[in-house]
Amino acid sequence: MFNAELKSETLKGLVYIVSTLVDEVKVTVHPDSIGIKAIDPAHVAMIDISVDKEAFVSYEADETELGLDLDKIKSVLKLAGPGDTIKMVHDPEQGRLTMTIGNIVRRMALVDTGSLNDPKVPQVELPMSAKLSIDQLQKGIRAAESISDADHVKIKIAPAGFELSCSGDTDLASLMVPADELEALEADDEAQSLYPIDYFSNIIKAISSSSVNVLLDTDLPVKLLFDLADGHAHVTYLLAPRIESE
Amino acid sequence: MFNAELKSETLKGLVYIVSTLVDEVKVTVHPDSIGIKAIDPAHVAMIDISVDKEAFVSYEADETELGLDLDKIKSVLKLAGPGDTIKMVHDPEQGRLTMTIGNIVRRMALVDTGSLNDPKVPQVELPMSAKLSIDQLQKGIRAAESISDADHVKIKIAPAGFELSCSGDTDLASLMVPADELEALEADDEAQSLYPIDYFSNIIKAISSSSVNVLLDTDLPVKLLFDLADGHAHVTYLLAPRIESE
Amino acid sequence: MFNAELKSETLKGLVYIVSTLVDEVKVTVHPDSIGIKAIDPAHVAMIDISVDKEAFVSYEADETELGLDLDKIKSVLKLAGPGDTIKMVHDPEQGRLTMTIGNIVRRMALVDTGSLNDPKVPQVELPMSAKLSIDQLQKGIRAAESISDADHVKIKIAPAGFELSCSGDTDLASLMVPADELEALEADDEAQSLYPIDYFSNIIKAISSSSVNVLLDTDLPVKLLFDLADGHAHVTYLLAPRIESE
Repeated sequence: MFNAELKSETLKGLVYIVSTLVDEVKVTVHPDSIGIKAIDPAHVAMIDISVDKEAFVSYEADETELGLDLDKIKSVLKLAGPGDTIKMVHDPEQGRLTMTIGNIVRRMALVDTGSLNDPKVPQVELPMSAKLSIDQLQKGIRAAESISDADHVKIKIAPAGFELSCSGDTDLASLMVPADELEALEADDEAQSLYPIDYFSNIIKAISSSSVNVLLDTDLPVKLLFDLADGHAHVTYLLAPRIESE
Repeated sequence: MFNAELKSETLKGLVYIVSTLVDEVKVTVHPDSIGIKAIDPAHVAMIDISVDKEAFVSYEADETELGLDLDKIKSVLKLAGPGDTIKMVHDPEQGRLTMTIGNIVRRMALVDTGSLNDPKVPQVELPMSAKLSIDQLQKGIRAAESISDADHVKIKIAPAGFELSCSGDTDLASLMVPADELEALEADDEAQSLYPIDYFSNIIKAISSSSVNVLLDTDLPVKLLFDLADGHAHVTYLLAPRIESE
Repeated sequence: MFNAELKSETLKGLVYIVSTLVDEVKVTVHPDSIGIKAIDPAHVAMIDISVDKEAFVSYEADETELGLDLDKIKSVLKLAGPGDTIKMVHDPEQGRLTMTIGNIVRRMALVDTGSLNDPKVPQVELPMSAKLSIDQLQKGIRAAESISDADHVKIKIAPAGFELSCSGDTDLASLMVPADELEALEADDEAQSLYPIDYFSNIIKAISSSSVNVLLDTDLPVKLLFDLADGHAHVTYLLAPRIESE
């Protein structure tokens, strides 16, 4: 059984994050929470989301799995105004999910979860971290995108602060947030790595929370941690580094 | 003679309706009203509009006919702000219409009305009707459009209420407005038919009035009745059904 | 040395004007002002801008030249919100300009000024002039663009007022601003010429000042004069006429 209601904004925030990596996703439903894990086809980035039942307006569920087509969910979200509540009911017999907004009902076939991957999220220890506003990061990534001959961004965390930069043959764009403007900073030393600009841009632009915690170590994946749904949904995003061949 | 002024919103409301079916239209001018009839090239849908002289800010006219190129009219409408008045003067000698908004004058050649069709609007008796808000219908049609493998919508009127639905192989979208949420309902029995989704979507999205009366009978055309220009323009739209071959 | 700060709106107003003609431009820096001259590749239109140091929030400069890539400047402008200040520092050793908005730094290679033209702006005496609001001109040019088979607009200044018109085979669009609605008018006699609609449209749509002074004589270039940056930047735009071969 899965029978739940949630604010359209909550669903939207989750769906736009996950759809940066995949078109279809397996949702694992528990009595007190749901879990969403996904890895992109090229195995460069991975997402791990846990949504507490408190993120929902109402929630009744047994252990089950739902295979969702994210484009269909997005088309339902486009019918919702701000503040609208979306009701979801799973029909396991028919393999269907029914979503209701006001007088609109949208019944959709679920995707076979056997065909959907269920990535193991690696445990990586990343000692450096900086927490900053998503507005700053979104401006930084747009600046980086103006460097037309660059494929990677460099992220650096140091006692002086957080830096996102992008270098081409002749040009450079950077966002430098000094330590005293960060919401939090853990940096005994400094660390930096290169990450693919397209993945990093897609995830940063999809984040609807107000701030993000960036965890890092040299030549290791970057981990983005942020909450959605007023702190009742927890997102971990991992992106593989490019190893600098120098 | 045709020498009239009207609010840009009034003209816009009419033009966007008619241009869902045709690019050029014959307008029949009478001393107290104008009439617009059009049928689309595939003869699937038809429109019949009557605009009383009270819909105009000023109106002086003899019996005449105007052949209008709707794209030209739309380009003039784009120059008008909300509340702007548009003046129209017909020059029958030169076969021209001159439209004036503020200091802008746009003089355009009229289309030969001999080349424009003047459809006979059939008298069909449709005993079932439901009046509902255009907002509901517009959400319903957008939900229907999310069913990617469907070509038709089903419209049903019954004592329980109004339903617009769309079914694909596996998925379904529907708008169900119960009787007590309708502005009016006439339904001794129930009736339903299928209509082409593209036509129905185009007209529903073009309607700028706040509510629409939908008249229906099984395997007959659907008739949409609505007013524009504060009740001084009356629109009838007829759309042919698909006969279900079952 | 060139080390200056200015409001993003000021830079935006200048860049959008210049980029109607060229993608790269030479900026001549003086201790008290900067000068920008450009001519389009077809030598049909020319621009001459002088920006006083008072247009800047801060300004320190020696005589120098900067070759700017306008697309790069535009990408920086997209990162600026209303009211943001942009800092620019020239590094002549490296041939670079560094632009800073808040925590964002964008360092860009300058274009070799040797490859950029430095047009001589001809002295033309144009006795007729009319000053009018940019809103009127922008509506007029949009009306003119609705005449699909026309390449030129006619501009006429006469004691009765200012007229911008565009004629096709059958259709006509015109803006007529009578003398008493003009902000200023100098017209002992009347004069008119034809100008290419694409150039005229591009410049009129790029102007962010509230009014423009149009100077004219029969079969001579039209000159547009307007100020940006609260009157501290002065723009002259010259557009060649089409000589009517009649």
